[in-house]
Amino acid sequence: MQRPSADLAPARPQGRPRGRPRNPDVEARILAAAAQVYGAGGWAGFSLDAVARAAGIGKSTLYARWTSGEDLLCAMVEERWQDVARIDTGSLRGDLTAFGSLVLTRYLETGGGVARHMRRDLAGHPELAARIGPVLGALTEQAIAILRRGRTRGELREGVSPALASDMLLSAMETHAGRIGPGETMREDAITAYAARVADLLIGGIGT
Amino acid sequence: MQRPSADLAPARPQGRPRGRPRNPDVEARILAAAAQVYGAGGWAGFSLDAVARAAGIGKSTLYARWTSGEDLLCAMVEERWQDVARIDTGSLRGDLTAFGSLVLTRYLETGGGVARHMRRDLAGHPELAARIGPVLGALTEQAIAILRRGRTRGELREGVSPALASDMLLSAMETHAGRIGPGETMREDAITAYAARVADLLIGGIGT
Repeated sequence: MQRPSADLAPARPQGRPRGRPRNPDVEARILAAAAQVYGAGGWAGFSLDAVARAAGIGKSTLYARWTSGEDLLCAMVEERWQDVARIDTGSLRGDLTAFGSLVLTRYLETGGGVARHMRRDLAGHPELAARIGPVLGALTEQAIAILRRGRTRGELREGVSPALASDMLLSAMETHAGRIGPGETMREDAITAYAARVADLLIGGIGT
Repeated sequence: MQRPSADLAPARPQGRPRGRPRNPDVEARILAAAAQVYGAGGWAGFSLDAVARAAGIGKSTLYARWTSGEDLLCAMVEERWQDVARIDTGSLRGDLTAFGSLVLTRYLETGGGVARHMRRDLAGHPELAARIGPVLGALTEQAIAILRRGRTRGELREGVSPALASDMLLSAMETHAGRIGPGETMREDAITAYAARVADLLIGGIGT
């Protein structure tokens, strides 16, 4: 099903929500429902209709904002990671801990379903990878930006590769999240404590 | 199909190959074929018959050694990781580089298929996880043993958690392997270089 009267909507940048008047509450509900639906069934079980049902809103309300599953999934991923761009605690340790905590929190949401399905779907659907890949790539860029700010403050050792360091931080969080079984979760303070341990090890290294 | 005359075989520890005379070449061929078959189709596509076909040997030759897919898969995983136990270069950096190289090499074999399927199968088949989990757990234990040897030599900073450090090393390798697409591979020297970079970052940290 396609939105029948797309010509009534104002011109908008591709992938951005449309429709007037915008209601942030409805959008937040839709995006939360999108995460739920995607986390449960991945791309194979994802559709605008399924998300409308899960959000408890009319299809027309949803179709007024997003016209394709790809657009909605992109918006969902963007919304989930937008807080990363706001991290700026003033210290490398603080930033890395905040970044790691946020990553672990997101991975654990929806029982890890979003992360688990995303990995498979991006491998199996090149057209989806082309849309979502850049959004997820922004996550690595934010980690690299954190490391570069640390370098400016003189907190980073010479010769360190920000790309490699951010890879190690992200993969540590992903691996840890993967150990948490379906239905289990971690308390917020345990998440922060784990992220701080990883940040400390990453900053100080293990060698004498 | 079950081996018809199991009572002719000598008593043996569970999960060990049986049959006489043992022929190491045949066993190596069977285990290589097992990795191939498992890497291509995971547990769903794994059977003694499929492995016998892939190895180009008679079913009776295979059934004389392994009577269940679980046993054969266990033996395959054990064989793939046994070199880890032999790593002992005399330095923490050398050991971590050798360990990381071996892990990355194994992950990249069969186009990453074994690692990719293993993760899903262990999550979806608790009975398989109960058999294979301990074998894979031995991998983490070897990494921890490497770090403990480093501690004895005075190469490890006080207060470092060997478990967390080994997690970070393993997950860095897994993430990097996941970036290599199907059909692609890495040259041996590139694998060693990457492992050395990770070891250096892990040992020295990123902080000033």
